[in-house]
Amino acid sequence: MRRKSTAYRPISHLTNEVEGYVLLNEADPLGIVWHGNYIKYFEQGREAFGRQHGINYLDVHKNGYITPIVNVQCDYKMPLKYGDQYKIITKMLNCPGPKIILSYQIHNQNGALVCEGQTTQVFVNLNGDLALYIPKFYEDWKMKVDFK
Amino acid sequence: MRRKSTAYRPISHLTNEVEGYVLLNEADPLGIVWHGNYIKYFEQGREAFGRQHGINYLDVHKNGYITPIVNVQCDYKMPLKYGDQYKIITKMLNCPGPKIILSYQIHNQNGALVCEGQTTQVFVNLNGDLALYIPKFYEDWKMKVDFK
Amino acid sequence: MRRKSTAYRPISHLTNEVEGYVLLNEADPLGIVWHGNYIKYFEQGREAFGRQHGINYLDVHKNGYITPIVNVQCDYKMPLKYGDQYKIITKMLNCPGPKIILSYQIHNQNGALVCEGQTTQVFVNLNGDLALYIPKFYEDWKMKVDFK
Amino acid sequence: MRRKSTAYRPISHLTNEVEGYVLLNEADPLGIVWHGNYIKYFEQGREAFGRQHGINYLDVHKNGYITPIVNVQCDYKMPLKYGDQYKIITKMLNCPGPKIILSYQIHNQNGALVCEGQTTQVFVNLNGDLALYIPKFYEDWKMKVDFK
Repeated sequence: MRRKSTAYRPISHLTNEVEGYVLLNEADPLGIVWHGNYIKYFEQGREAFGRQHGINYLDVHKNGYITPIVNVQCDYKMPLKYGDQYKIITKMLNCPGPKIILSYQIHNQNGALVCEGQTTQVFVNLNGDLALYIPKFYEDWKMKVDFK
Repeated sequence: MRRKSTAYRPISHLTNEVEGYVLLNEADPLGIVWHGNYIKYFEQGREAFGRQHGINYLDVHKNGYITPIVNVQCDYKMPLKYGDQYKIITKMLNCPGPKIILSYQIHNQNGALVCEGQTTQVFVNLNGDLALYIPKFYEDWKMKVDFK
Repeated sequence: MRRKSTAYRPISHLTNEVEGYVLLNEADPLGIVWHGNYIKYFEQGREAFGRQHGINYLDVHKNGYITPIVNVQCDYKMPLKYGDQYKIITKMLNCPGPKIILSYQIHNQNGALVCEGQTTQVFVNLNGDLALYIPKFYEDWKMKVDFK
Repeated sequence: MRRKSTAYRPISHLTNEVEGYVLLNEADPLGIVWHGNYIKYFEQGREAFGRQHGINYLDVHKNGYITPIVNVQCDYKMPLKYGDQYKIITKMLNCPGPKIILSYQIHNQNGALVCEGQTTQVFVNLNGDLALYIPKFYEDWKMKVDFK
């Protein structure tokens, strides 16, 4: 599979932090969070980011678009255990094109980095057409939040 | 909460069996299937039942209804472990009203009963109205499959 | 399946409230929370209850026991939708025997009751033996929290 | 995050195919499989591969190792919908080092490619030490299955 290096950097003020506790149903027989559940934590971070910065899934939908994820990746550094408290730090990367690229870092209660990952989303209108240009509402949002 | 005794009995020919393997993501730190995941197995059984007997969710939807679950319950007898093979036996109960009541039994590879449960579904039309009578298409289906 | 009526009542000071947002991965094609995911919300409530009252899963384990769930049930009243904020109210019932019975009520952001359910847990020691009497540590905990 | 290009190629006879149906609980409000659930399908493929080729998680554990996932990635091409039947094709890549790299392709019932991804696993012994060399049992397995 193709793995490209991206040169995009986080936009320092477009970030969110949200916390949670590891539940029993999220941990596997080794007592650690099953690797696929971090993708749920990423979603928890992404939605908290969206609520904070006014770019939630429902905001996007109201403007006639959905933003499906076209790539996800995650590097695992150390495990979270059942009962641990975690913090998800979500950052928006300064991708100039018609895409939303978010990076995620998850830390445990001691501040250690547990994993980091990234999602890439595209804009698709309600007819199912991929947006080749940045939708107007998203340009407006970028202006408003000083995306650069 | 209210727990009623139901007198309904299984209809012997309206049954389905489907098998699967316990995946790592379904087992908890004790190495056994997390209790909530049996609700997913019930769905696996319910959908296999629907495919076999022509009463799938999409069949129902085509006729202008959805069938939300209004009650679920499960009694746990013994654990399934990671790697176990399981069999789900789904049976339709002879409820005469505008409801679908299915019972589920899950067995492990040695034939031991792991858990048993039940779901109750009602008919709601696409305007969101609860059906107080049995929808025509479901009456027809009951005739066709000799529901009694 | 057997459905017994329980006469146990909630102990008014042994309660917990915890809130969350419905995530996209928890909602189904109807845009509403998939019924099995309320069992996860019950766990979220149960663990928050355990942290508040000092009877967490890890507290129990330290004393040589696990507390597997032997029954779960849920009555659904109205749906939670993607993006909704929910509140889980967990209450301990005054069951006198060697069992933990918790009831759960989930409300949406308007205070409407979404669903209510119940879990029953038993005590099993680390050899896998079911406790027929209340373990000492749990008697002590009941004294401490004025369980009655 | 770092994204390296890997030059490893699939080993043509170390492959597995397994099929399934998309369940309601796996689909999101758009009626399509939630992106994180493909990571579960990858696990379904990985475990079917392990059963077929004798390198299951439990086989590995019996030899004193666990094989945690240190990287996962997935590229999404088109959606699977509720009710679709899917096929997971899992292939082992010819990585010469102390790692297991598997690639996954998921197709729908029409044979269209839905997504492709990759997982990387390392060997950790039961003391928690990362294996810097290939464990003996895995060398033996590679000989037996003609890994090259």
